[in-house]
Amino acid sequence: MSSQEKLNFIQTELEELKEKGLYKDIKTLEGPQGAWVQIKGKKMLNFCSNNYLGFANHSQIVEAAKKAIDEYGVGPGAVRTIAGTMDIHHQLERKLAEFKGVEAALSVQSGFKANLSAIPALVGKGDTIISDELNHASIIDGSRLSRADIKVYSHNDVDSLESVLKENPPGKKLIITDGVFSMDGDIAPLPEIVEVAKKYDAMTMVDDAHGEGVLGRSGRGIVDHFNLHGEVDIEIGTFSKALGVMGGCIAGSAQLIEYIRQKSRPFTFSSALTVPDTAATLEAIKILSDSDELVTKLWDNADYFKKGIKELGFDTGESETPITPVMIGDAKAASEFSEKLFEENIFAQAIGFPLVPHGKARIRAMISAAHSKEDLDFALEKFSKVGKELNLI
Amino acid sequence: MSSQEKLNFIQTELEELKEKGLYKDIKTLEGPQGAWVQIKGKKMLNFCSNNYLGFANHSQIVEAAKKAIDEYGVGPGAVRTIAGTMDIHHQLERKLAEFKGVEAALSVQSGFKANLSAIPALVGKGDTIISDELNHASIIDGSRLSRADIKVYSHNDVDSLESVLKENPPGKKLIITDGVFSMDGDIAPLPEIVEVAKKYDAMTMVDDAHGEGVLGRSGRGIVDHFNLHGEVDIEIGTFSKALGVMGGCIAGSAQLIEYIRQKSRPFTFSSALTVPDTAATLEAIKILSDSDELVTKLWDNADYFKKGIKELGFDTGESETPITPVMIGDAKAASEFSEKLFEENIFAQAIGFPLVPHGKARIRAMISAAHSKEDLDFALEKFSKVGKELNLI
Repeated sequence: MSSQEKLNFIQTELEELKEKGLYKDIKTLEGPQGAWVQIKGKKMLNFCSNNYLGFANHSQIVEAAKKAIDEYGVGPGAVRTIAGTMDIHHQLERKLAEFKGVEAALSVQSGFKANLSAIPALVGKGDTIISDELNHASIIDGSRLSRADIKVYSHNDVDSLESVLKENPPGKKLIITDGVFSMDGDIAPLPEIVEVAKKYDAMTMVDDAHGEGVLGRSGRGIVDHFNLHGEVDIEIGTFSKALGVMGGCIAGSAQLIEYIRQKSRPFTFSSALTVPDTAATLEAIKILSDSDELVTKLWDNADYFKKGIKELGFDTGESETPITPVMIGDAKAASEFSEKLFEENIFAQAIGFPLVPHGKARIRAMISAAHSKEDLDFALEKFSKVGKELNLI
Repeated sequence: MSSQEKLNFIQTELEELKEKGLYKDIKTLEGPQGAWVQIKGKKMLNFCSNNYLGFANHSQIVEAAKKAIDEYGVGPGAVRTIAGTMDIHHQLERKLAEFKGVEAALSVQSGFKANLSAIPALVGKGDTIISDELNHASIIDGSRLSRADIKVYSHNDVDSLESVLKENPPGKKLIITDGVFSMDGDIAPLPEIVEVAKKYDAMTMVDDAHGEGVLGRSGRGIVDHFNLHGEVDIEIGTFSKALGVMGGCIAGSAQLIEYIRQKSRPFTFSSALTVPDTAATLEAIKILSDSDELVTKLWDNADYFKKGIKELGFDTGESETPITPVMIGDAKAASEFSEKLFEENIFAQAIGFPLVPHGKARIRAMISAAHSKEDLDFALEKFSKVGKELNLI
């Protein structure tokens, strides 16, 4: 065989993706992430980012990152367990724990890594994970890595969850749910999940990626939103969404966090967060701890946009958060809608199968505190124009 | 059952770790990573970091990170495939590809994530991974996630590798090896591995974590070291070792990288690298591209320290790189050695079972271009003193 043959599958599969319309065309920002971004030289109103509070380019956070670089340099230079733990990591972790109202927190390089760190540390072969069917890829990958048996329950359906637990699956039981689901913007019924978990002595874990900085007092997240402090065993967080940086965390009791610190493979074998990322995230938490101004503005903006888009005749599905799906239905129509918006200087993503079921394609509008009322009015005008052109409203 | 019972295993296992002497006591740096670090108010000569070239706190890199923050803010605000790709990510990836002599490269948040991104994209159920027995945890976890069959060959043993391939294992075949092994500092026999791979039409992948910035012309890595350009299908890199920052990359042919970009779950579902991390890494590559001064100094330092430590009567095992194991043998003696060095203001880690086999405990001295000759003389004097105190030399 020639040395090319072993790689033939790559070209074949790339062609398949193109044929199926699944090939991703990745856009490039030519400047900072913000309410408006520059793409191909054009200023675009940004409805695509997770930058809920405008922290990705917030002046106070920018200054904190630069100051820390002056003091500590750029890199940690080692994994956390050898020589990569700096006092700023502890400062961040203490502040995170205080903010979330838990005993302790541990930072890792991404929310994705937080799930890979926590799940396989807590359960293994012979144990059972009970997982919402719409949970994020990182929960799925973390669960697979653990080698525990994975049982899936119907989305946000506590009866379906209980029916799994009733069968008394083997070993330790870990219930995992996203807090806010990123495609629909709906919220997990956490109080009911916690009740069922107690009944069957199951551990509970929530991934608060789209809840931090959004839900609860001053964006303290889903546990605060439902006032469930002390009732959820493991909270997963991410620094790349409302907090505007990159990184992830695991939060819970002091003992649980010590356990993850000792047992987690990705924590043990992977570098610490960099100086600027750590300092920037710490500053973001400080801003939230000091004032709920931006979180209030985020919700005002989300309510304003949702009200406007519904008045135009669009349906926003199950959304209870600033993630605003504008339901289109047909995948091709959703793509066309997104392209026409792009021509009108609005960057808003079409989402179709396999991310959402067939016939449920949509434009996902991500609302931010960085948007002004004028931005949202501009968007509503363009959604109206394109919606009429495509005979959708 | 009480809600506490489900978590009882945590306390039990933490106590077990302590009994077995496996409980990690994590040290904290009170300032920048460098040749000397501050721990508990004490200045310590640092022999623990992966900061081979002193880039973690290099003035030019610090300035580049700060300048990029001024221009682009801190965070990317989204995953790469939605709205998190910035032009600086492309700049970094182009520069990385040029530096490594490949067609294309893709950046992710860590070297760990690079393995999790690449391996499951390339092989799956029904395929076979052939993996060196001493490969890094991230290769093992990436291999597990892929669901391919995993065959392990004896460390750096090409005959053992060939005996696996001879049996014609099913599906696509992917040979994976670390470039430099982090516990012994030995180098994979990549030319022989490539030869065997050709014979059996297997793909080859090398994780160059401890080779970048260390091996090859100006630190171009293991492929350059062996002049194997175009012969290795997938190169994994990390930005957290010699490059002094954090992050990882996948490098190879343009088509392979496009394939990873389209197929990889961690790439699709996880945030882009932050602005300062991207800019700092880019600057590190630029420094290396412009001059081999620091790489030369690293090797001079490593040679100087190794020669000195051998003259004292210590054995440095299989090391061929600046990773310098000072073999002790007994795990308790190695721990005591490390503690005594710490009292003498030297931060050097003892490594025992399970990271290395029973009876092969050692002090792992990580040599850096940031060390001065005076630093190395100081260390040699202290290694001599402690070695004599413990009757090891």
